[in-house]
Amino acid sequence: MMKKNQILQKYAEGKTLVNGWISIPSSYAAEVMAHTGVDSVTVDMQHGMIGFADLMHILQAVSSSTATPLVRVPSSEPSMIMKTLDAGSYGIICPSVDDPKICKTVVDACRYPPLGNRSFGPSRGLTYGGADYVKYANDEIMILAMIESQQALDNLDEILDTPGLTGIYIGPNDLAFSLGVIPGSASDKVETAISHILSEAKKRNLFTGIFCSGLENAQYRKEQGFNLVTPGNDAGALRNAYQTFVGKLNDEDKSEIESTGGY
Amino acid sequence: MMKKNQILQKYAEGKTLVNGWISIPSSYAAEVMAHTGVDSVTVDMQHGMIGFADLMHILQAVSSSTATPLVRVPSSEPSMIMKTLDAGSYGIICPSVDDPKICKTVVDACRYPPLGNRSFGPSRGLTYGGADYVKYANDEIMILAMIESQQALDNLDEILDTPGLTGIYIGPNDLAFSLGVIPGSASDKVETAISHILSEAKKRNLFTGIFCSGLENAQYRKEQGFNLVTPGNDAGALRNAYQTFVGKLNDEDKSEIESTGGY
Amino acid sequence: MMKKNQILQKYAEGKTLVNGWISIPSSYAAEVMAHTGVDSVTVDMQHGMIGFADLMHILQAVSSSTATPLVRVPSSEPSMIMKTLDAGSYGIICPSVDDPKICKTVVDACRYPPLGNRSFGPSRGLTYGGADYVKYANDEIMILAMIESQQALDNLDEILDTPGLTGIYIGPNDLAFSLGVIPGSASDKVETAISHILSEAKKRNLFTGIFCSGLENAQYRKEQGFNLVTPGNDAGALRNAYQTFVGKLNDEDKSEIESTGGY
Amino acid sequence: MMKKNQILQKYAEGKTLVNGWISIPSSYAAEVMAHTGVDSVTVDMQHGMIGFADLMHILQAVSSSTATPLVRVPSSEPSMIMKTLDAGSYGIICPSVDDPKICKTVVDACRYPPLGNRSFGPSRGLTYGGADYVKYANDEIMILAMIESQQALDNLDEILDTPGLTGIYIGPNDLAFSLGVIPGSASDKVETAISHILSEAKKRNLFTGIFCSGLENAQYRKEQGFNLVTPGNDAGALRNAYQTFVGKLNDEDKSEIESTGGY
Amino acid sequence: MMKKNQILQKYAEGKTLVNGWISIPSSYAAEVMAHTGVDSVTVDMQHGMIGFADLMHILQAVSSSTATPLVRVPSSEPSMIMKTLDAGSYGIICPSVDDPKICKTVVDACRYPPLGNRSFGPSRGLTYGGADYVKYANDEIMILAMIESQQALDNLDEILDTPGLTGIYIGPNDLAFSLGVIPGSASDKVETAISHILSEAKKRNLFTGIFCSGLENAQYRKEQGFNLVTPGNDAGALRNAYQTFVGKLNDEDKSEIESTGGY
Amino acid sequence: MMKKNQILQKYAEGKTLVNGWISIPSSYAAEVMAHTGVDSVTVDMQHGMIGFADLMHILQAVSSSTATPLVRVPSSEPSMIMKTLDAGSYGIICPSVDDPKICKTVVDACRYPPLGNRSFGPSRGLTYGGADYVKYANDEIMILAMIESQQALDNLDEILDTPGLTGIYIGPNDLAFSLGVIPGSASDKVETAISHILSEAKKRNLFTGIFCSGLENAQYRKEQGFNLVTPGNDAGALRNAYQTFVGKLNDEDKSEIESTGGY
Repeated sequence: MMKKNQILQKYAEGKTLVNGWISIPSSYAAEVMAHTGVDSVTVDMQHGMIGFADLMHILQAVSSSTATPLVRVPSSEPSMIMKTLDAGSYGIICPSVDDPKICKTVVDACRYPPLGNRSFGPSRGLTYGGADYVKYANDEIMILAMIESQQALDNLDEILDTPGLTGIYIGPNDLAFSLGVIPGSASDKVETAISHILSEAKKRNLFTGIFCSGLENAQYRKEQGFNLVTPGNDAGALRNAYQTFVGKLNDEDKSEIESTGGY
Repeated sequence: MMKKNQILQKYAEGKTLVNGWISIPSSYAAEVMAHTGVDSVTVDMQHGMIGFADLMHILQAVSSSTATPLVRVPSSEPSMIMKTLDAGSYGIICPSVDDPKICKTVVDACRYPPLGNRSFGPSRGLTYGGADYVKYANDEIMILAMIESQQALDNLDEILDTPGLTGIYIGPNDLAFSLGVIPGSASDKVETAISHILSEAKKRNLFTGIFCSGLENAQYRKEQGFNLVTPGNDAGALRNAYQTFVGKLNDEDKSEIESTGGY
Repeated sequence: MMKKNQILQKYAEGKTLVNGWISIPSSYAAEVMAHTGVDSVTVDMQHGMIGFADLMHILQAVSSSTATPLVRVPSSEPSMIMKTLDAGSYGIICPSVDDPKICKTVVDACRYPPLGNRSFGPSRGLTYGGADYVKYANDEIMILAMIESQQALDNLDEILDTPGLTGIYIGPNDLAFSLGVIPGSASDKVETAISHILSEAKKRNLFTGIFCSGLENAQYRKEQGFNLVTPGNDAGALRNAYQTFVGKLNDEDKSEIESTGGY
Repeated sequence: MMKKNQILQKYAEGKTLVNGWISIPSSYAAEVMAHTGVDSVTVDMQHGMIGFADLMHILQAVSSSTATPLVRVPSSEPSMIMKTLDAGSYGIICPSVDDPKICKTVVDACRYPPLGNRSFGPSRGLTYGGADYVKYANDEIMILAMIESQQALDNLDEILDTPGLTGIYIGPNDLAFSLGVIPGSASDKVETAISHILSEAKKRNLFTGIFCSGLENAQYRKEQGFNLVTPGNDAGALRNAYQTFVGKLNDEDKSEIESTGGY
Repeated sequence: MMKKNQILQKYAEGKTLVNGWISIPSSYAAEVMAHTGVDSVTVDMQHGMIGFADLMHILQAVSSSTATPLVRVPSSEPSMIMKTLDAGSYGIICPSVDDPKICKTVVDACRYPPLGNRSFGPSRGLTYGGADYVKYANDEIMILAMIESQQALDNLDEILDTPGLTGIYIGPNDLAFSLGVIPGSASDKVETAISHILSEAKKRNLFTGIFCSGLENAQYRKEQGFNLVTPGNDAGALRNAYQTFVGKLNDEDKSEIESTGGY
Repeated sequence: MMKKNQILQKYAEGKTLVNGWISIPSSYAAEVMAHTGVDSVTVDMQHGMIGFADLMHILQAVSSSTATPLVRVPSSEPSMIMKTLDAGSYGIICPSVDDPKICKTVVDACRYPPLGNRSFGPSRGLTYGGADYVKYANDEIMILAMIESQQALDNLDEILDTPGLTGIYIGPNDLAFSLGVIPGSASDKVETAISHILSEAKKRNLFTGIFCSGLENAQYRKEQGFNLVTPGNDAGALRNAYQTFVGKLNDEDKSEIESTGGY
């Protein structure tokens, strides 16, 4: 039997999932992260410094952990979505799903016929997922649409109603930009939009995830009801750790070292 | 003029240096670390997951920062020492310098004639150091001998008296092992040995560095008088950060998450 | 004179061509395959675990053999098609050529003006093909359109009539999916479609190739009249070999080890 | 403060800029070139043998020099444009900007809101550009549209009037092809077109760059008034150097060794 | 608890182990092999086309399988032995263990003090083996000495009596060469030596492994009593598969295609 | 039949050979160089920025040319010498062959028994050299000892009399250093030593090669009677080309741009 999607199972059980975010093109860094108890790891091919060879090595490295591998694809272009799935990703997070047509394109790329038009060629699916990968892949692969623009808000109902969509993932920084707010600044406008997306998604029993600016923000989003929270990325965690080392060892008052969160 | 060795200059000015430790084979992770204000970064080719191609990319990536690049070589074998210098390292940390003969081999490998027998072929030295690299390299390259065994303690005077040696670097874990102590456990025996090495080195005006189990330990070593402290490695920092994220977000009481320090 | 396309020459002489299929991102594995007597090798950038750096290394490695290098591109997107040609591929196999417009886009991307709009920048063409590459490339580069959907069947005549098209390549698995048949299962519907495509292509003197589920199937397709047959991919061959080793050495009755063919 | 774009500053001061062109996927070769005094280096992702991992390593390697890093992207597809900027490029040269719609797509991809729709996720921008990268990036990132077809000539006014465009870059080879001229041959038609583009761009105070077939041609283009000239690429320089070595050492009369210029 | 060494456990249960042999520098090929049911895979750093970065990726890729990862190191040089263990190998196969001094060097490199002098720095041991890796590694890491020369035969008793040695691995090709026999040719001399090594090893309850020229030979070695047999390497399997495809499809009588076994 | 060593054949015919020198870790740069008409290319693993994976890719890339592939190994350590031969090198240039014992170690590492102790495992030898590689390799592999120190001069007779040695290669820079002369400066002492080595080698009909500081120096060495001359390395050629571009285009008087030759 094909390996089950662990986060879909935990989600069914009501657990709030902790997601790691990978922008460093190193399978060793990814493996270290995947073994810390995170429920899933997302390889960021949009803004992360990661090409396809890196992606494959990272997906292999995290396969020995219990963390479910996801990929944030660079765009809704179908051939790259299909290739990341063939490489063993158990789900994709697609940026800028601004209208229902894009959403359908994305869903179609992730589903074998007759549900979609994903091309046959499972590759690493056979080693990571199992020999019957093709038979069950449509049940295990998650499809998360990023809602991160005014346009997406305008089309929200139609996007969320796309058959086959697993859920949404909010990118608060691009959403802020689109609403005329500088990313990272406090904004009622952005918070209102986030609440609205969350509630519309929940209404339809859709899975909900969000990128957070740090641990504290992740705790807030968890309480707010998101199913999956990303407390920041690997580069940010490394930067913060060493900035703290340097600040303390140089006796500098760096109580105000700003988190650069997950970018 | 060849680029000066920044940490030799800061050392002359009395600053205690903060050193980053790189075990992740990613030039991007290394670049992020190098821009946090650390005074130097050491690429660990002994226990780090790093081959030569990774080393070169890492050395290139840190070249845009003010951090001085050092390499912990895998052993005292001269051809690899020379190659890491040709790749642009401004110093080497050599493991297991257990007797003066090894120490002389290491020093000879780092110095152009007539001071040593480093082979001519500067390569990246010309881009990172400058066109007159060969003329000044003997003045800028640091040579740190790791004192990390009973045998090295027995031979300490002769090792430290090796002409051309810049200083020492203590590996407390291997030193503990060699003294019959489990690495990481508190031990007067190990502390006594460390104090002895430190004081013998200082007596000769040698540069002193040490690997630390974390920030607190690094602060202690700074107060103890070490010139350079390494508060832990990149993989440990990443692991600690995500274990904290997971622990807090899962509401687990993980107040006792142990640092795995710099390995 | 630019190196001639070997398989175009053998095709003119009536030989049925044996094509290797590369999904493993290793130039060494590719080189081994290319020296087994195969007439061509196709690097699969759609479902294979292969990025651009891997592709270039593979194309270099097979250049010392007599096998003609082809690339199955990820999609009909022109810039990637052009880049694989610049890297030294002597032909492309394009997936999902479902209508004549796509077919024209693909042909245009493969032909320098005035026949198409391939951008100038021959790169590896100059080392693999020769200094007069640009002059003769339009004569040597093969363009094979994959016919693998109901839509492509519906548009078959117009697709096949696209000026400049060298021939077709059938993907039986995606074709089956599109016809409502599970890939790998016996199906008259699929066989009828294959025969139809074959005969329409031959009517127009187009080159015909097909992916096969294994040696036996390849022998059948050869007899059926295809010009080029792919008996399976590298990963499948490796898997089958070791599954046989394990089965026999463990005294298991694995007479029914299924070939996973070329995916 | 974010690191300033050096070539924009020198351009303001009226200096004609010398640009290196990178097609070799090696950060070491790139670093060597970047330290020769060139004002900028352009990594060619369209015809160069360069994938994303290579790009990142190259951008890191040139960061220690004073040369400004630019990228010739494979196409106007926005997600790749954004990713090369996130990797630290300070400008993009986009091929085949044949109409104003393409031009607007390109400009939008390079500008954060509200000027465009570049997605948030600065990554290497933070290490190369500085912590306030997002705030100032819109001022520093250059956007050069390649004018290299009859269609672009037909739409020249509208293309050049695109708000936010920094300037143009001429690809004489593709332009020749499009005008029915064999690339590399002398042609009044091509020269007339080049002069026209140059004068239209200058009329609007746009930045002007051009690819040249060698040093002599670059000197001519400088005198003609171009702001940035590319005297040829790395592979061509290497080829020419060794062809000269071989010709002279074999006592062959190779006075007619043709430059292969920058491709 | 540290992950147990699976082949040591199966060995204790009396199973004859099937070992895959990796010479292709691809983590994807390795992963495919590791999931075929082989009990272990050995990454060949002596004659395989594999550097350190490849090794790490391969070890990560096989970590998701039940196959135990071993490394054939290039030589008895300790720093490389230690580094392959830090990378997660659960055992090493060391070439040319020709005398007991070499054997002790190898054993010492594989055992933490007080049993040996392996340096502290577990790295991937912590992710693959577990957080208590250092505590239990001495129990799980296998040390196999290659007996493959007349000199080793002369010193056999002393080599086999080295405390801490897990067992032996026979390299029949080098052994043949050393005995004046052309590798691959039938030879009583070589067979007598093999039998002698096997029986001396068994007398001391040492683990016994051997490289085989193919499946048939592996079956013979299994019957002869070896605990672990290697039926050939990955490159050989791939070559054989495609040579068969080509031979059959070209209707050539290639009934005599020679296996090139594991090199 | 195993592919013949082209430079051994041309040497027999009396041609002076032109050798390219590779320090850039790029198979594409290497391929470009190998197709310029050079008789051989040497991959520099001592001072070049090249690890094993790079070496293999480079050796593959040059295999499609007529240039014979050689490797300058990092040292006389046998396992790396053997591995570079397994990777397809047709000869090695070994640094610092300072005494006859080192010379014998090197020769032994390059010859299969009974002539030496090279270990069996031909790998790429089978694809580049041919299926009968093992049978003929001892005839085709060249072994060149670098004479580059006072010590080597003192031991010259014994070194040159080592059975199996193909010839010598002079490293003038390290030789100068060893003689107390700054590399690159004119020196009768160094010239006398070079002449002496040349004449002693010729007396014994040994092959003679030398590294040169540029084209002019290479022409001089050719006239002096060397069989193989290296006019400089790839990085130097690239640097010189772009420094010339910059100097001329900036109207600077750079008539005195110094060649950095082959380092």
